[in-house]
Parts: sequence; structure tokens; C-alpha cells
Amino acid sequence: MNQHIYSLQELAHLVKGELIGQAEVKISGLASLEQATTHHISFVNGEKYIEQALHSKAGALIISRDLQSQLIHHQNFIIVDNPYLAFAMLTHVFEIKRMSRGIESTAKIHPSAMIADNTYIGHYVVIGENCVVGEGSIIESHTKLDDGVEIGNQCFIDSHVTLTGLTKMGNHVRIHANTVIGSEGFGFAPYQGKWHRIAQLGSVRIGNHVRVGSNCSIDRGALDDTILEDGVIIDNLVQIAHNVHIGENTAIAAKTGIAGSTTIGKNCILAGACGVAGHLKITDNVTLTGMSMVTKSIFESGTYSSGTGLFESGQWRRTIVRLRQLADVPLTKIGKRLDHIQAQIESLESTLNTRK
Amino acid sequence: MNQHIYSLQELAHLVKGELIGQAEVKISGLASLEQATTHHISFVNGEKYIEQALHSKAGALIISRDLQSQLIHHQNFIIVDNPYLAFAMLTHVFEIKRMSRGIESTAKIHPSAMIADNTYIGHYVVIGENCVVGEGSIIESHTKLDDGVEIGNQCFIDSHVTLTGLTKMGNHVRIHANTVIGSEGFGFAPYQGKWHRIAQLGSVRIGNHVRVGSNCSIDRGALDDTILEDGVIIDNLVQIAHNVHIGENTAIAAKTGIAGSTTIGKNCILAGACGVAGHLKITDNVTLTGMSMVTKSIFESGTYSSGTGLFESGQWRRTIVRLRQLADVPLTKIGKRLDHIQAQIESLESTLNTRK
Amino acid sequence: MNQHIYSLQELAHLVKGELIGQAEVKISGLASLEQATTHHISFVNGEKYIEQALHSKAGALIISRDLQSQLIHHQNFIIVDNPYLAFAMLTHVFEIKRMSRGIESTAKIHPSAMIADNTYIGHYVVIGENCVVGEGSIIESHTKLDDGVEIGNQCFIDSHVTLTGLTKMGNHVRIHANTVIGSEGFGFAPYQGKWHRIAQLGSVRIGNHVRVGSNCSIDRGALDDTILEDGVIIDNLVQIAHNVHIGENTAIAAKTGIAGSTTIGKNCILAGACGVAGHLKITDNVTLTGMSMVTKSIFESGTYSSGTGLFESGQWRRTIVRLRQLADVPLTKIGKRLDHIQAQIESLESTLNTRK
Repeated sequence: MNQHIYSLQELAHLVKGELIGQAEVKISGLASLEQATTHHISFVNGEKYIEQALHSKAGALIISRDLQSQLIHHQNFIIVDNPYLAFAMLTHVFEIKRMSRGIESTAKIHPSAMIADNTYIGHYVVIGENCVVGEGSIIESHTKLDDGVEIGNQCFIDSHVTLTGLTKMGNHVRIHANTVIGSEGFGFAPYQGKWHRIAQLGSVRIGNHVRVGSNCSIDRGALDDTILEDGVIIDNLVQIAHNVHIGENTAIAAKTGIAGSTTIGKNCILAGACGVAGHLKITDNVTLTGMSMVTKSIFESGTYSSGTGLFESGQWRRTIVRLRQLADVPLTKIGKRLDHIQAQIESLESTLNTRK
Repeated sequence: MNQHIYSLQELAHLVKGELIGQAEVKISGLASLEQATTHHISFVNGEKYIEQALHSKAGALIISRDLQSQLIHHQNFIIVDNPYLAFAMLTHVFEIKRMSRGIESTAKIHPSAMIADNTYIGHYVVIGENCVVGEGSIIESHTKLDDGVEIGNQCFIDSHVTLTGLTKMGNHVRIHANTVIGSEGFGFAPYQGKWHRIAQLGSVRIGNHVRVGSNCSIDRGALDDTILEDGVIIDNLVQIAHNVHIGENTAIAAKTGIAGSTTIGKNCILAGACGVAGHLKITDNVTLTGMSMVTKSIFESGTYSSGTGLFESGQWRRTIVRLRQLADVPLTKIGKRLDHIQAQIESLESTLNTRK
Repeated sequence: MNQHIYSLQELAHLVKGELIGQAEVKISGLASLEQATTHHISFVNGEKYIEQALHSKAGALIISRDLQSQLIHHQNFIIVDNPYLAFAMLTHVFEIKRMSRGIESTAKIHPSAMIADNTYIGHYVVIGENCVVGEGSIIESHTKLDDGVEIGNQCFIDSHVTLTGLTKMGNHVRIHANTVIGSEGFGFAPYQGKWHRIAQLGSVRIGNHVRVGSNCSIDRGALDDTILEDGVIIDNLVQIAHNVHIGENTAIAAKTGIAGSTTIGKNCILAGACGVAGHLKITDNVTLTGMSMVTKSIFESGTYSSGTGLFESGQWRRTIVRLRQLADVPLTKIGKRLDHIQAQIESLESTLNTRK
């Protein structure tokens, strides 16, 4: 473990910002506006945080030029165009990183595996035949690399991860704890009332700068491979079935599941707990809001949603009763019938009027 | 492992109940009314189980006073006010508990870690720098305590758990197998078409008497901490994102997910597979029924629901067709138009009548 | 690892098909029509793949007799009645299987455990008191068999699996990585504002030919056992709560959850991300489409569905507004009122006409 202390000047330099105030003030950490003390630097992510910023005890603030003058109680600032990005950059400065390198004596590594320099291989890690671990990569305790798995440079694989099915990944990939990649896809042929297992002969290919959260399951392909392109980011407890293909820089939030052979484009955002059926194509730049259910391909970029939202339970029960009646109500005809009836009445009125 | 045999008198004493029948009858276990044999004690959880109880072969029954007289075939009873609670108490008497204490020779414990007396540390456990394990706590095999993790007294941590991100927990906490606590939150700043990782500098704080199921993911905070207050109970496969705060004695069922920075009050019950969006506040004493989707803060206690319920698929498809028409149907105006038309017709009829 | 090369004749023999073309052509793998090269055999799963097959570079094709004549560019075929089944059979021929047997020196096995012949027990596996591992079974690295767990013959248990709670399973069972079976069910008795843990005294019983995916949680019963019958197949990230009973050959897709004490019949198919409430009965031969929510027992076989499907977000928001009005709209009366009004108008018209 390691503690970091920087002068405000050093931090301003790191984010290429302009310093206002005491260049030499010592900053030992980042904190939220609410929790910050005089040793912390905090950031003001737009107009709506001004009120909170005014009451913050932070020793310094990262802020955009146009908002700085409103903070009359503070004297130390770093002025940047994008305070959120500057904050993101500084998190890396204050992060506690594993410094140690080397191979723990309890790691079991097959003699045919190639482990590059400057790696860390934790306690009780198991690495199989013909595996590759690239330079600077960190494999935390208890992780398993089954035969033929390949990991690029500067990767981080946390504890209890299972990599199997000849999974291959590029550089700067981060896989969080207890995730399984390359496990057997759910493929069975029904025959005479029973399920006949289809051995899964494909693999998983993961690009560069990919991030997978904890407790995810990413299955290997049936024949061809399951593919995550460069820059894909995935949250926790996500299911990626066999032969799914996810395009560059697509983000997938927690608890989402994508069924077999579905292709998702680039720069998509799937919010939490979405479900995407199998064998679909979703084009680039699609956003799904939380808990969306996708049962058809999406050919047009845009934002899509599912679900009923939340109801007070009594009203919800009454709504469900109506919903069960809905199939038999000719909704689109009601308006037309009303218009038709209205016309008939007006015709009757006019007939009556002419006979006065 | 250990087998327990008790006299009915001993059991009655343990639950502070009144014994009716043979004090010395030997009871070797608890069982359901259906599966119980003469060596078992079972319980009658209210009027609706009387019929089943009449046919039970249980050697003794835990029952409330008012129902006892209906069970004419049985002779051994423990009379209590709350049979379900008495049953809950007796489950602990018959539970098979790990008796062994000590540190297995294969556990890797950093010299700076503080392991209290009377603990059990299983095979291949890895405990990092400056960790603390309190008195009487049990850490099962393969579990990983990353640097700086602290566990209180009388805790139970099952196998393959990953505790990282400086997670700290109180006493009497139970964490089930393969759960990950303290892993990195899903925080990325979008910039120039790419996702820039925000290192997560917060931690996870867990109170006393908290229970977390298997395969859960609880992320550490971005700057401040993710917090579970005393008495929180969580089922399996639950996602708790960074900076979530869960109030005392709130219960969360399996497969629920709570997105980042959401605060949930005390004594709430979230049923299975609910999804709660980020940055919301849910007040105390809120109940969500299964699969509820929460996209707005909830300021009033009560029960809330989502979803459409289950339909036969043909009717469901027809209902969805109608649902897609619904946005363009002025539902609230239909009644008013009908009333207006009715009034016009009555006016016409009256005009006609006056002209007879 | 092992590479396989077969002649087309050998493969035809294995699937009991008729060979057309060169008997001695060498096949080194299965591939999709798209990815296949001259060394691969591929399969044509019905009329709709003919176009793709015409352009495939596969060295041989598995196909039904009626379709073969359409493939004028190819010369090597295996003719079978069910190409998909023949493909499923051949996947096993080309699968890379673990060949090694024996017990790794780092496995910790209690002296009382019974390990049959011809098994493989991987690195850092922990096997407790009185466990049984049947003939030919493979236990991959880091897996934990807690005291009293029994595994039948020819089973495959992947890495980081936790088997506890006296779980017993039959033969030919496959459990994928990081799954937890036999963990404590989520049982708490509420009393005086707190949750009182009910120790879970039941176990898990798993039949023959059962398959469980990765990252699943299957809890042990409260008093009686949680049961998976023969032939049940389960995908990844599935939750099976305490005392659930699943009938023979039922298939459960990823991310589905089944709450406590629910019984599911034989030959059911639960698609992905379904939620089934507790204490229900679902009869045999029920199919649930994806993300279905089941809150009542299902007594009739058939296909059932839930949810709203996907909407463009703007239309979805307008639809939700209407849905919130629905409870107060007397849908079934609208048609009747319209008919009644129509009759009144016709009566008025006829009155007017008679008075001309």
C-alpha cells in the first residue's frame, strides 16, 4: 500500500489546468464536496453543484472558469474545461496500486506457459499448458488460466476468475473477481424428449482496453467465437451467451443478459438488467434504458425502453385487470366510432332544425 | 460434523414453551409436517396447517395453545405463542456447525495481519497486509482478504469470497460463497468517443448482523463509501453498485440490482429481481413486489409494483398490439365524449317528443 | 490438449449417415457454413441455410437427403435424417477433453473421503470429511467439496465451484465454474423489527445427467431438500431458492430466478431472466418466454409471456402516461355504451323518417 501527497501545483500540472491560489498547499486525496476536508481536493461538476461547493470544506476545487467566481469562500482552484475528466484523471494519481511484482511460490504454472517480465502472479494461481501472460499484467490470487488461455500486456485479473475455453485477450484488459470467461455455452439438441449436449468448440476473443466486472459469465462459442471488441466495458453479474459479438466502446450495465448469437453494434449503452433475445442484430449507437426487453432486431439508432414503471400496488392490481381486457378492446376504432356518431347526431340536429 | 439428540423437555426449555406429553421422548431433528418421523419435532404455523398436522408422523409438535386441542392423534407438544419463531430458534440447535478452530497450514497470511483467538482460517485462504479477523470468526477455504480488509467478531465467510477495496465489516456478519465485496465500481468518464476509467477510491462499510448471500457483487464507492447498515439481509446474485447506502434491517431478495448512489431506507423489503435506478432516495418501510422497476425516488412508505403479470402467449401478443396503440388513444377523454354524446341524444329525443 | 483428424468415412460411420463423395477426405474440425474451410465439415440445418451453404467453403456437409441435390458446388456429403443431431454428436468427437487423471499434490482431501478410480482432482481442490467422488469424475482446480458432499460417476465440476450443505448428485452431472450449490437458503423470521436467521437444515439432491452453468446459486432446503430431477439443464447466473423442486428434463435459461418452495414440472422451458415467485406449482410442459414474471401457479400446459416489449423511448413515455390512466377507464363498457348510443341514434333517425 502507498499513500500519496501532492502539491496543488503538481496536480494542476497533471490535468493541464490553471492554478489559482496557493501553489504549495498539500493535497492527500480526492473527496466528494460533502466529505472533503482541507487536505482534499474536490470537483464541481456544473452549475447544480455550486450550492454544495459553497459549503464544502475542500482545500481546493477543480472547476470550470465560468463558475469559479461564484465560490467566494474558497481560495484554491484548478481551472479546467472539463472538471469531470480532470477528476477521472486524478483518481489514478490517488489510487492504491499493487506495487509488488513476481510470482508467488504457491502459484502452479505449467512449464510450457510463457510469463512475461514485470508481472505479478498471486498465491494459488493455476496456469495451464501453453498459456501466455503479457508484460506488466497482474493476476490476483486463486485465479485459474485453463490450458491455452492468452492474456496481453498490462492486464489486471482479480481473484477467483476462471478463464477457460482457450480465451484470448488483448492489452489493458481488466477482469474483476469471480468472473468466468470461456465456459461452455448452453447448447443442447432436443431429441426424443431429452437434451443432448452440444460440446462447444468455439472460444472467446477479447480486444484491448476491455473491462468486465465481477461475477460475470461470458460463454465460449459453439463453433465460431464469442467476441468483445476494443473498448467494451461491462459491469457486474452480466451474462454474455455463446457467439455474441459486441462492438467497440459499447457499455453494458449490471445484470444485463444477452442471448446466443446476438450482435450488438458500436457505442451502444445497455442500462442495468436489460434482456436481449438470441440471434438479433442491434445497430450502432443504440441506448436501452434499464430493464428493457429486446425481442427484435434494432436497425435504427436511438433510445428504446420497456416495462410499465412503478405503481402503488393497489393501483397496479387494478391496472393489470384492465390490461387483461385490453386485447379485446378495439382501441383505434373507438375514436372513429365516436367521430361517426358525432356526425350522425349533427346530421339529425340539422334535419330537425330545417323542419322547425 | 455433529449429531444432536435432545429430550422434548430440553427443547421446551430452550424455546421457553410449555411441555405437554412425554418429557423424556428423544428428538433427533426438526422436519416438515410431511417428512417428519417419530424422532422429529415439527411445527404448526397457524390454522391452515391443521389438516397436514393431523396426518403428520412427527414425534412432537410446536403449536399455539388455541390449536393444540384439534390435534387428537398426537400426544407430545410444546406450546408457545409464536411457533414459527420457536422453530427458527430450534434450527440453530440442530444445525451442523464447524467445530474446528485454528489456522490451516496452507493459509497464506501476511505477517502484519491480526488474527484473533478462536478463529478458523481454512485451506488456501489468502489474507493480505494489515487485515484484521475478529474473535470467533470463520473464514472458509480459498477466500481472499485483500490488503486492509477488516472482519469483526463471530463472522462467517464462506469459500471463494473475494473481499477487497479496504472493506470493513462489524460483528456477526455472514457472507456466503463466491460473493465479491469491494470490487471496483463501474465508473467511466466518456470523452472523445471512449470510456475513461475512474479509479474507485472509496470503500465498503458493513455494520453488524449483516447477511449477504452467494454470488453477490457489492462495489466499493467512487470517493465516499458504499454502506450497509446493521441488520441488512441480502439474498443471492444481488448487485449493489458504488455509493449505495442501505438502511437498517432492510431485506433484499435474490437477483435484485441497485444502481449507483441510491439510498434505501430502514425496514424496506425488496422482493426478487427488482431493479432500482441510480441517484434515487427510497424512504423507510417501502415494500417492492417482485421484478419491480424503480426509476424515481419514493417518498411515501407503502407497497409498490411493476410489470404486466403473466399472459397466455397468444393473448399477450394481442395485448402488446393494443399497448402499442395506447399512446394515441385519449383514454381520459373517451368517457367525457360518451357523456357529451349521450346528453346530445337526450336533447334530440326531448326536442322530438315536444314536437309530437 | 489433443487434435483430432478423421476421414469423412469415419465421421459418416459415427453418425450412422450415408456417405456421398470422397471417403478418404481428411476432416480436422467442425465449423459454421460461413467460417468453414476445406478441412472442415459443416451442417445444413434446413432449407433456410441453403443459400449460405451454396457459398460455404466447407470440405463436406451434413445434410438431409431432400436438400442435397440443391448443393451443386459441393461433392462431399453425409446424409442423415436430423443434421442438427448429427452435428451435436460430432461436437463430442472434436471436443478438447482433459486426458490426465490422478490427484494433484496440492489437493487437500480429508482421509475419510472416498475418491474412486480414474478421477482427476485438480490443484488446490479441498475435499472435506466423508465426501464421495465417483469413478471417472473430474474436479477442476480450487473447487471446494464441504463435508459430506457426494458426487457420482463421470461428473465434471469446473473451477471455483463451492459444494456445501451435504449436496448429493448422481452420475454424468456437469457443474460449471464459480457456481455455488448447497449454500444457506434465505430464511429469516421477522420478530420485534429484526430478522432472525433460520438455520437451513435441508440439503440439495441432484439427479443424473443434470447440467448447471457458471455463477449459479442453488440453495439447500430449510427442512426438506431442494431437488433437481434427472436431465434438468440450467444456464448461467440462475438462482434456485431453498426447497424448489424441478422436474425431469426441464430447461432453465440464464438469469432466471425461482423463489422458495416452488415446484416446476417436467419438460418445461424457462427462457432467460424469468422470475417465478415462491410457493407456486407449475405443471409439466410449460414454456415461459423471456423475462416472464410468474406470480400464480400454472395448471395448464402451454406458452406464457410477460412484459411490454420494446418501445422507442418517447412513445414509451407517452404509453406509460396512458397506462397510469388505465385503471380508471371502464374498457369493457366502452363498446357497450357505443352500441347503446348507436341504437338510440338509429331509433331517432327512424322516428324522424316516419314523420317526413
